[in-house]
Amino acid sequence: MITVRQARPGDGAILMETTRELAANHGVLDTFTATVEDFESALFRPDAVIGALLAFVGDKPAGAAVWHRSFSTNRGKEVMYLEDLSVLPAFRRRGVGQALLKDVAKLAVAKGYPSIYWMMMEWNEAGRALYTQVGAELENGTTFCRLHGDALKALAS
Amino acid sequence: MITVRQARPGDGAILMETTRELAANHGVLDTFTATVEDFESALFRPDAVIGALLAFVGDKPAGAAVWHRSFSTNRGKEVMYLEDLSVLPAFRRRGVGQALLKDVAKLAVAKGYPSIYWMMMEWNEAGRALYTQVGAELENGTTFCRLHGDALKALAS
Repeated sequence: MITVRQARPGDGAILMETTRELAANHGVLDTFTATVEDFESALFRPDAVIGALLAFVGDKPAGAAVWHRSFSTNRGKEVMYLEDLSVLPAFRRRGVGQALLKDVAKLAVAKGYPSIYWMMMEWNEAGRALYTQVGAELENGTTFCRLHGDALKALAS
Repeated sequence: MITVRQARPGDGAILMETTRELAANHGVLDTFTATVEDFESALFRPDAVIGALLAFVGDKPAGAAVWHRSFSTNRGKEVMYLEDLSVLPAFRRRGVGQALLKDVAKLAVAKGYPSIYWMMMEWNEAGRALYTQVGAELENGTTFCRLHGDALKALAS
């Protein structure tokens, strides 16, 4: 029995577990510094930019989706960006990811967002299969760029 | 003389021009539906998620950067996402893009954002040269995924 619900105060520990699992899966655990309090504070502040949905198998946390408000300059409208979609290892291959994605789509429609977008590593074949199945458009050939730390300070100075 | 300043009410027309130029440059002008009013409304609403910087050469609009609030689940913190960096054709190869990027970095530091990230098409060699020069980390091999229209409605139903 898979159930999905919106995150509530107190769910920060589950979100830290699922996003940490995703970081491990992507080989970037060494850069993971998020805390339980970070999620509690980001989700429930008055001008929150993120939201989250949690999936349970029976009463056990099985995965989560974290999304944030984004903006399409092509459309001139807010759109939904799916930042994380993570299923804990013990609950994979049971439809948890698809159940989460379906509820993300429901939420986007309910909020009037015209589209949802997200990024996937090209090597993620399980993701590719799921996303193609639900009718997403996939486009390879994008480069992720990040400026932080000393380089950010140097450019800003 | 290149100057950069934050967008003000009334700048929607300039932003429509620069983002439209970027859409043309990326071959997606057929999907461009943003209006002047879209930018005015998105920039200056109380819970705005986007911000913009405009570049001028003399008193002529030469380019713009549109950014939005984003969130890193790895860091558990808000970060800055650079949605558009566009220089109008008549003003290219004069340092307008770099001037915009520098002021984006200043704004990120002023706002306490630990990092700025953005996506680039792998074919964008001019972008790659600029971004490498300012110390950004670049990682190829990402796939852009988008769900909208009938596919979004079908998944949500």
